[in-house]
This record gives sequence, structure tokens and C-alpha cells, in this order.
Amino acid sequence: MAFPFQALPGFRDFAPRERSLCTYLFEAWSRVAGRYGFSEYEAPILESAELYLKKSGGELGQQLFRFEDQGGRDIVLRPELTASLARIVGEQQRDYPKPLKWFEIGRCFRYEKPQKGRLREFYQFNADILGEASPAADAELAALAIDVMLELGFRPGEFVVRLSDRAVWREFCQNNNIAPDQLDAFLQVVDKLERDKPEVADQKFAEFGLTRQTVCDYAANPGNASPAIRAVLLDLKQRGLDHLVEVDLSIVRGLAYYSGVVFEIFDTARSMRAIAGGGRYDGLLSILSEGSLDMPATGFAMGDAVIANLIAETPVALGKLQAWRQLQRTCDVFVVVAEESRRPEALRLISNLRNAGIRTDFPLTPTKINKQFKAADATLARFAIVVGNEFPELKVKILSSRTETSIAPNADPVDFIQRLLDAPDGPLLT
Amino acid sequence: MAFPFQALPGFRDFAPRERSLCTYLFEAWSRVAGRYGFSEYEAPILESAELYLKKSGGELGQQLFRFEDQGGRDIVLRPELTASLARIVGEQQRDYPKPLKWFEIGRCFRYEKPQKGRLREFYQFNADILGEASPAADAELAALAIDVMLELGFRPGEFVVRLSDRAVWREFCQNNNIAPDQLDAFLQVVDKLERDKPEVADQKFAEFGLTRQTVCDYAANPGNASPAIRAVLLDLKQRGLDHLVEVDLSIVRGLAYYSGVVFEIFDTARSMRAIAGGGRYDGLLSILSEGSLDMPATGFAMGDAVIANLIAETPVALGKLQAWRQLQRTCDVFVVVAEESRRPEALRLISNLRNAGIRTDFPLTPTKINKQFKAADATLARFAIVVGNEFPELKVKILSSRTETSIAPNADPVDFIQRLLDAPDGPLLT
Repeated sequence: MAFPFQALPGFRDFAPRERSLCTYLFEAWSRVAGRYGFSEYEAPILESAELYLKKSGGELGQQLFRFEDQGGRDIVLRPELTASLARIVGEQQRDYPKPLKWFEIGRCFRYEKPQKGRLREFYQFNADILGEASPAADAELAALAIDVMLELGFRPGEFVVRLSDRAVWREFCQNNNIAPDQLDAFLQVVDKLERDKPEVADQKFAEFGLTRQTVCDYAANPGNASPAIRAVLLDLKQRGLDHLVEVDLSIVRGLAYYSGVVFEIFDTARSMRAIAGGGRYDGLLSILSEGSLDMPATGFAMGDAVIANLIAETPVALGKLQAWRQLQRTCDVFVVVAEESRRPEALRLISNLRNAGIRTDFPLTPTKINKQFKAADATLARFAIVVGNEFPELKVKILSSRTETSIAPNADPVDFIQRLLDAPDGPLLT
Repeated sequence: MAFPFQALPGFRDFAPRERSLCTYLFEAWSRVAGRYGFSEYEAPILESAELYLKKSGGELGQQLFRFEDQGGRDIVLRPELTASLARIVGEQQRDYPKPLKWFEIGRCFRYEKPQKGRLREFYQFNADILGEASPAADAELAALAIDVMLELGFRPGEFVVRLSDRAVWREFCQNNNIAPDQLDAFLQVVDKLERDKPEVADQKFAEFGLTRQTVCDYAANPGNASPAIRAVLLDLKQRGLDHLVEVDLSIVRGLAYYSGVVFEIFDTARSMRAIAGGGRYDGLLSILSEGSLDMPATGFAMGDAVIANLIAETPVALGKLQAWRQLQRTCDVFVVVAEESRRPEALRLISNLRNAGIRTDFPLTPTKINKQFKAADATLARFAIVVGNEFPELKVKILSSRTETSIAPNADPVDFIQRLLDAPDGPLLT
């Protein structure tokens, strides 16, 4: 019989098996961010609609979860993080040395048609550097994004960073008599260049007195790369990462606040949407603070949906995930209560093991011995301690090898197990 | 000048300093849950309103963030987790051995007047056991809740678990001619007993043909403890934890789905709201599945707001937090670029250190040496590596002791630093 309640369309339930993939991603994200000296922050899930409607532009406005709360406030569930981050930095930046290197892992929401790689609720990793105008900050972020990919087991040739700079198009517009107030509209057309049919793009560019071919030719000419792009490339070359990057001026990003260097990461086969994307948003803090704080900023985000799909389709990355999964035990030790009259002593032993930090499980109620061992195997515990008639002597089964040892009545079982756990896994020699 | 955008009332910004308290709590919660053999899950933030409106009862209905989405769905931001968990378990329980021991750490939302310990957005730790009807499951959860308190540095005498059982009141109602369909309404009055003025409570109980005194006398009589309460107490005694528990039958919990053993944790001074609370909800899965799945269940939740306030007011627990904070470096090693022409070599060194998993930071742009050392100190890095004129020789400053050593041109700097990091902190002897 079908269960009458389900998750809403575009929303996911994470039972432990699904949640463990999140843990894998979150650990990789925060481990690499930690290596780069980033500190974690978190913003509210809800914000005033104005913060996101006015500042992001593009298609985001039509994709908002937006409602009025009981107090009459116009509210959104955050569609991304940048405006929230800028708000928090605006309020609190005085308390932190510059540049700020901050990262976040949290949920975002968009009301759009659920499809592969696009959900209504998703996790996003955000990394930003604020207070540094140099392309060195953009290079640091591109390197961090690359290292996340490598950390997840992707190999050179399986993904590529496409690097660009909106400054290139500001100059292009100047040279082609496109007014500054038309720049955003023009960039929206460039942003759709890959998705629009040629005749649609031609029609859109005609409004700016241009042809699709003119724009594509300009984008394809590496000589048009900006000084900032060249600086980022040189920096990444010095880190030994430049072979993972290509200049692609057709990348401009969809959101209105981007101001300079931008980049996106794609699988090389281009079978999926962008894995990650970001760039410079130097003007956003000034806009949000109504001119009271002018701070350069740059950042990128990586969602969980596309990367999870890509891991599933990439053998080495998938193998790395599977190897990690096999190490995820739900406990280290399973205590088998073989003699029910010894349950009080078993409970005391379990408490002592847990107090020593050893992850310990046991049957809550009287259970047949073979069922207890089956339960122990299901947890992937390394050892089972059998509390039986021999108590205070305790039998210890090494579950991987089905070998056995015992803990003498005068020995401390916690010390004994701790030593076993500290030793490498494998058959026990005593 | 005030920043024009702020967080919504009852919502919090977590800049890195505030976020680190979350990390401290989340780590303690998941560490202790791990010791007890619990697996992590996560539910969506949004659910259909029906799921929470029908199943929770009590005051929750008036405190919901509730709205209609673009598809005309009646939506809530989850006010707690139990109905979502029951929904997920109902759909997926076949794939997991029983009993399920699942935990979750995530955000919940209530629209109520923001006040101390009560916010509109908060984090909540949930731990539940499903598929086990025995009081042993309730004891396992009470022990887990106690161990979380001890893990956070609270000492016996600073908090108490108040243990009760709704079955006691079902029997009381039977004996006092209160109809079964009046039980919920009666329990709502018991739930408010501590907060209502005596005359208000008297008036409310009069509708059931009772006086406040009768109910209080019944609640105060330990002889009225149920067999389940006695079983939980005995189990906790065997674990050495019974001195942290007292029977208090006036605890009934506010939500309609609770069916049996319930408990709450309070600071002993009772200066705050409940730190944690939960209990058995054996009927909920059957209700949600319209009778297709009948599974006993029990669980508890602990929010972040009250416990954070209590840590701040409790010397030993606060000391433990502060000691932990002092170990939170944003990097292990800070690379000082003393000679700007050596930046390419510095970047390569930084990449190598990070690739070895060493958390490394550096100045993104040319910076005066004393400013670089100040930045290094701000990160709490243990070591600074100076890339200067002596390259390929590297100076290493031990920042805590202001002593110095050097890495010879033929040595591997990554190995060298790794050995330093593996050694205990303190002055270096080489």
C-alpha cells in the first residue's frame, strides 16, 4: 500500500544511505576549504524578499519560494547565498581581519520544474573571499574549486574550468556602441548563447545591432582575454593547475551582480549542467550598504545534485566514494548478550565502552544469539564482545575473520578493546 | 551608518565566531549519537502542511510558518522533525534492519514571539529509535541525552532528567470518569500546570470535575509510577545514570502524538525552559500510514538555543567550550612571502602543503613582513614558513614560542612540516 504522505516534488528524503553521500560531499568540501584557510559561516534560510529580488536579477526572481509571513513581511527562502553573505559581512566585517575567507554548506531553494541536476531543495557549498581586489583571490578560489574536484576523485581530463571576465564584454559593448544600461541585457543573451538556437540568438543580438557570429568570433579569440584572466592563469600555472583551465569568454554567469572574473566547471563531456560557478561581485556590498561600505568580493558555489550525478558516472570518483562507504560502520563494537541474566553487567560494560568514546551497539531486548551476530554484521562492527556464562571472562569475536579471543576476568575490557581498535584491521594474533 | 538589510526578527546570522559554537554542539551531538550506534538522516525543510497540522496538535498549529507555493500547495517550514521522520521511515523502513536508531541535526522554524531560548529559526538534534516497543529503547534514549549533557561538560547536579509516562494519566482519567476523547484536552492542562496560575489551573481542571490539588497530589505520588517508568529507571541504574533522573509525573509533553514514556531535561536551578524533551509516539506511524504500518517509536530533541544559554552560565561547561575554541586554528601553517620575486616558488610550496592535507594560508598580495606575521598570528597557525632570499632554504618560525628552525635546501618541506605537526605543540628541539 502506498504511503499517503510523500516528500514535495523536487524535495528529497535522506534516509541514512542517501545521507551518507551528503556526509561524503560535506566532508570533502569542508576539508579542502580548511586546507585553504577558510572559516565556516551560516546565514538564515529565510530572508526579506527585497534582498534577493533587487540584487540578483536574471531568472532568479521568477524561481523564488516567496510568501508573506504572519507579520506581513515579504519573505523568500534563499535561492543562493551571496546576498545573505554580503549582508552579514556588511554588518560584521569590522570584527575580522581582511581578507575574509569564508565558506558555507547549507540548503537553498528554487521553485522550478524538477529535472536531472535541478531540484527545488538542494545543498550548496559556497566559498568567498572578501576584501581583496586582486586576481590572486580569484585564482585562490579557482584552485580551491579544482582541489575539491581532485579530492572527490575526478582526474584531469574529466572536468575543465572555463574562465572568463565580464570586463571583456564591458569593453566590447563600449566598442560596439551598446549603452552601459544595456550591458545587463546584452550579457543575458551571451549567457544563453549555448542553450539558444542560432536563429534565436541572432534575433536577440540584432536588437544590439550585432550578429551571433560577431559575438562568437570575439568570444573565441584568446587575444581578447583580460589582464585579470591572464593573471589568474599565471597564478594557477605556478600552482601546477593551469592544465585544468581554459579561457572561454562566452561564460558570463546569469546573475546581475557579477562584475569581473567569472568561471564555471563542467564535465569534459559536457553531458551535464555546470558543476560549479562563480566570480567577482565587487559592487554588491556597496549597493546593499547604500554606499556606506565598498568592499571587493569574489566567490563560487557548488551544488550537490550535479556533482552527485557526475560521481555516479565517473569510475574512479565512484570507486573512491564506494571505498569510503565501506569504512562507514555504525559502530565499532557490538555487545552480544548471550546470557540474559548478565544483562545488567552487559549494560555497565556498554556504558564504559561508550564513555571511552568507543561506538558500541547491542540488542535492546532478549534476542537469539544468531540474530545478535547478524545484527552485529549489519552494523559493520569490527568486534563482538560476548557477555555469557563465562562472565567475568568475555569472549571477543573478530567479525571480519571470524576468529576469536578472550578478555581475562582481571583485564580491563575497555583497554583491551581500545588496543584492538588501534591495531590495523585483520586477523588477530595474540 | 546602519546597514539597511538585517536578518529577520528571530533569525540569526552565524559569522565564523558564532558558527563555531554550532560546530561545537553539532560535533558533540553526532559524536555521542555515534557512540550509541545511531545513523544520520535528513528530512526536507518544507513539507505539506497537512503532515504537521493533523499529527502534532497542541500549540504547534498556531506557530507554523505556512504558505501557499506557486503550485497552489499548502506548505509549512517544518516546526519539528517527528512527522517527517515517521513519513520517511514509513516509506523506507523495509531497507533497514530493526530497530532503527537514527539521528538528525538540522533547522526547524516556528512563528512565535522571539525571546530568550525561543527563536523563529533554530537548530535541533533529533534522536529516535523505531521498531522497538520495550522501555529499553526509552532508556537508551534517556542515556544518550544524559551523555550529551556530560559530553558538553555539565556535571551531575547541574541538570536533571524528569521522567514520566502518559499511561499514568490514561489510567488516572479512566479512574476519574474522563472520557478517552477528553484525554488530549486534559493532558494539555497538565502540560501547562507549571506555567498557569493556580486559580487558572483550578478553573481548567474544574471542567473535568477535578481540582488542581487532586491532580498535583496524584502527580507527586511516586507510587503512581508506571511499570515502564520503573523499567527505564532500573536500566539507567545498571548504566550508573539513575542519579541524574527523577520521576515527575507532571511532565506530559505538549504534542498530541505522545503515547507513553516521556521525559524532559532541565537545568537544576530551573532558570530556563526545557533543554531537551521527547518520548514515545507508538501510534504515529499507524496514523500517518492510514493503518498500513504499525511500528512503535520513541525519540527526543534538543535545540541549540537553550543549551547555548546554559553553557554560557555554567562555569565548567563554558570552560570546556573555551578550551575547544582555543584549538580552532583556521590553518596549521602560514607561508610568509618575504621576497616577492619568490612568490611563484611560494605558491608551489603552498600547493604541495595543501595537497598533503596541511591547512595552509598566505598573503594573496604583496604585504609588509610584520603584517604577514600579524596575519599568521590571527589564524592561530602553529608555524610560519618564510620564503625569502635564502630560498631554497626555508626559515620556519614556531609561532607559539617565537623560536626558529630551518628547512635545508635538500629536505622535503612537506615532510618536515608534517613531522613538526605530528609532534606535540611546544618549543622545538632539533
